[in-house]
Amino acid sequence: MKRLGETLRFANPPYVIGWGSAVGPMEGQGPLGKTFDMVYPDLTMGEESFEKAERKLLEEACRRALQRAMLQEADIDLFLAGDLLNQITTSSFTALKVGAPFAGLYGACSTFALGIALGAALIDGGFCRRVLVGAASHNATAERQYRYPTEYGALRKPYSQWTVTGAGAVVLADEGSGPRVTLATLGKVADMGVKDPYNQGAAMAPAALQTIQTHLSDTNKAPEAYNMIATGDLAAFGRQMALDLARKQGMHLDAVLHDCGEMIFDREKQDVHSGGSGCGCSASVFCGHFMQQFGQNKLQHLLLVATGALLSTTTFQQGENIPSVAHAVAIEMI
Amino acid sequence: MKRLGETLRFANPPYVIGWGSAVGPMEGQGPLGKTFDMVYPDLTMGEESFEKAERKLLEEACRRALQRAMLQEADIDLFLAGDLLNQITTSSFTALKVGAPFAGLYGACSTFALGIALGAALIDGGFCRRVLVGAASHNATAERQYRYPTEYGALRKPYSQWTVTGAGAVVLADEGSGPRVTLATLGKVADMGVKDPYNQGAAMAPAALQTIQTHLSDTNKAPEAYNMIATGDLAAFGRQMALDLARKQGMHLDAVLHDCGEMIFDREKQDVHSGGSGCGCSASVFCGHFMQQFGQNKLQHLLLVATGALLSTTTFQQGENIPSVAHAVAIEMI
Repeated sequence: MKRLGETLRFANPPYVIGWGSAVGPMEGQGPLGKTFDMVYPDLTMGEESFEKAERKLLEEACRRALQRAMLQEADIDLFLAGDLLNQITTSSFTALKVGAPFAGLYGACSTFALGIALGAALIDGGFCRRVLVGAASHNATAERQYRYPTEYGALRKPYSQWTVTGAGAVVLADEGSGPRVTLATLGKVADMGVKDPYNQGAAMAPAALQTIQTHLSDTNKAPEAYNMIATGDLAAFGRQMALDLARKQGMHLDAVLHDCGEMIFDREKQDVHSGGSGCGCSASVFCGHFMQQFGQNKLQHLLLVATGALLSTTTFQQGENIPSVAHAVAIEMI
Repeated sequence: MKRLGETLRFANPPYVIGWGSAVGPMEGQGPLGKTFDMVYPDLTMGEESFEKAERKLLEEACRRALQRAMLQEADIDLFLAGDLLNQITTSSFTALKVGAPFAGLYGACSTFALGIALGAALIDGGFCRRVLVGAASHNATAERQYRYPTEYGALRKPYSQWTVTGAGAVVLADEGSGPRVTLATLGKVADMGVKDPYNQGAAMAPAALQTIQTHLSDTNKAPEAYNMIATGDLAAFGRQMALDLARKQGMHLDAVLHDCGEMIFDREKQDVHSGGSGCGCSASVFCGHFMQQFGQNKLQHLLLVATGALLSTTTFQQGENIPSVAHAVAIEMI
């Protein structure tokens, strides 16, 4: 079996041969602003609705990823994508433009890593040569759908997160050069009793930790085997909680654990409360910042642990807890 | 490559070693009523909300599938599931109970075939030994979310479909006996300009035909290579449209093409207009009727073509077309 415990182990690890990112203005002004391929000057991206703007982000990220891979849409065997909107319409409308066979995913903010894991397995299993994986979110569409339209100016709690306006896409392939997807740990759903939809960091931290522990235990690795374990998106509050939980279990992740939601914004200068969230966050940070770091040889071993809060407005209004999940993929120069 | 054109070809086709189905009262009174494992006497399934009732259907289908496979939850390497509710909460809350690593899917009514295709690929690729695949829908939750609460008694058009209250789940495995998943064709998103959310059969028929054509062409098969090509869920109106479209292209599918949405209800006696829909429809018909037919040796070669209308209430209200997709899996006694 190409499997260690619950972790998938790729025999011929697929390559990341293309990557693309597109973000909104706040993300462009943040500390990683210069690493993104495209920064739009306003939230509409020149479209007539925020939903269409979100699609434009994903289309642009896919376009850039294909361009870097020097491929056309017709060269893609499968498009794996997901987003936060009801019925993942950002992804399915983008799939219409991409034109490749399409498998829709939903893992809330864990979607990008889920797509990389499944895409890498389909390539390593011999079913596809090239898979396009994408994820997107938009602040105005997500806030309207999950909480309040941003125009209301509803007050937000200090531990709330700011949905990233951004998208990322990668082309995975059976041959090429550059970083490779070596391992993937798909997570189990966790529920620690959190009910506050503004406190997603708290809901997701235990799921992140559970997946990291499973991954390290399955592969018999120390956390330091990775230059960085990057969660996405616990933000500042959730990351602290994950570190505290880890410490209680005798794990010291302080030096190696960072969070995409914390990295994408400058919390001192930007009014984002605990930090970024949304499935476009880890996707754009990976395709922007991390791929640049790989290119500059500043990063060799990354464990990307994308985390998702699996609530809906209905489950919240019906008083349910917020279950969560985290999927980890190891991307390494080997 | 384990691939013919766009069609995945499994080298060691995974077995369907467990299957389970659970449905509501109308489905129980329909022509396939006796083939389901569990028929609930009312739409609440004894729960306090329809959303919880929908979860109970999926949990029950999973429980029966595991029971038939003589496995426990802990024996499952991966749970692949999806449903129609926003953020697929039926599936993620069920995943919490199943306890296995979870990959959330969204393909509207095409979800069950998408799950079987990905699950079979993960097994044949050597990444998993046993995968649980499930899909569910509930008339009262879907109607409330997509159209009107059923209590309003809103009039429905003659070509509208009746969302099936039902769930189906299968356990796929690398060894066993019985029918096997031999081929899978993941579909491309199609858009024929349909905008009427009551006319999903029309929106989905071209996607179904496109995937069937791709599948037959990739595998160099005639339609008669299958005892049945079962779409799910075009219903009566959509199936007629698919047959007409096929005829125009010189394909004669009349003898072999049937539809799960047409089969599950008696349109003469039950007030379901064009027939059934919802991702629980093809899932429950497969796990009930078709698995019984395999068991009685009345069926040897089935092509299940699950079709999904990829709309949301937002895209509809914003005047967008309804794109659709169809995924096909060949399940055969070989």
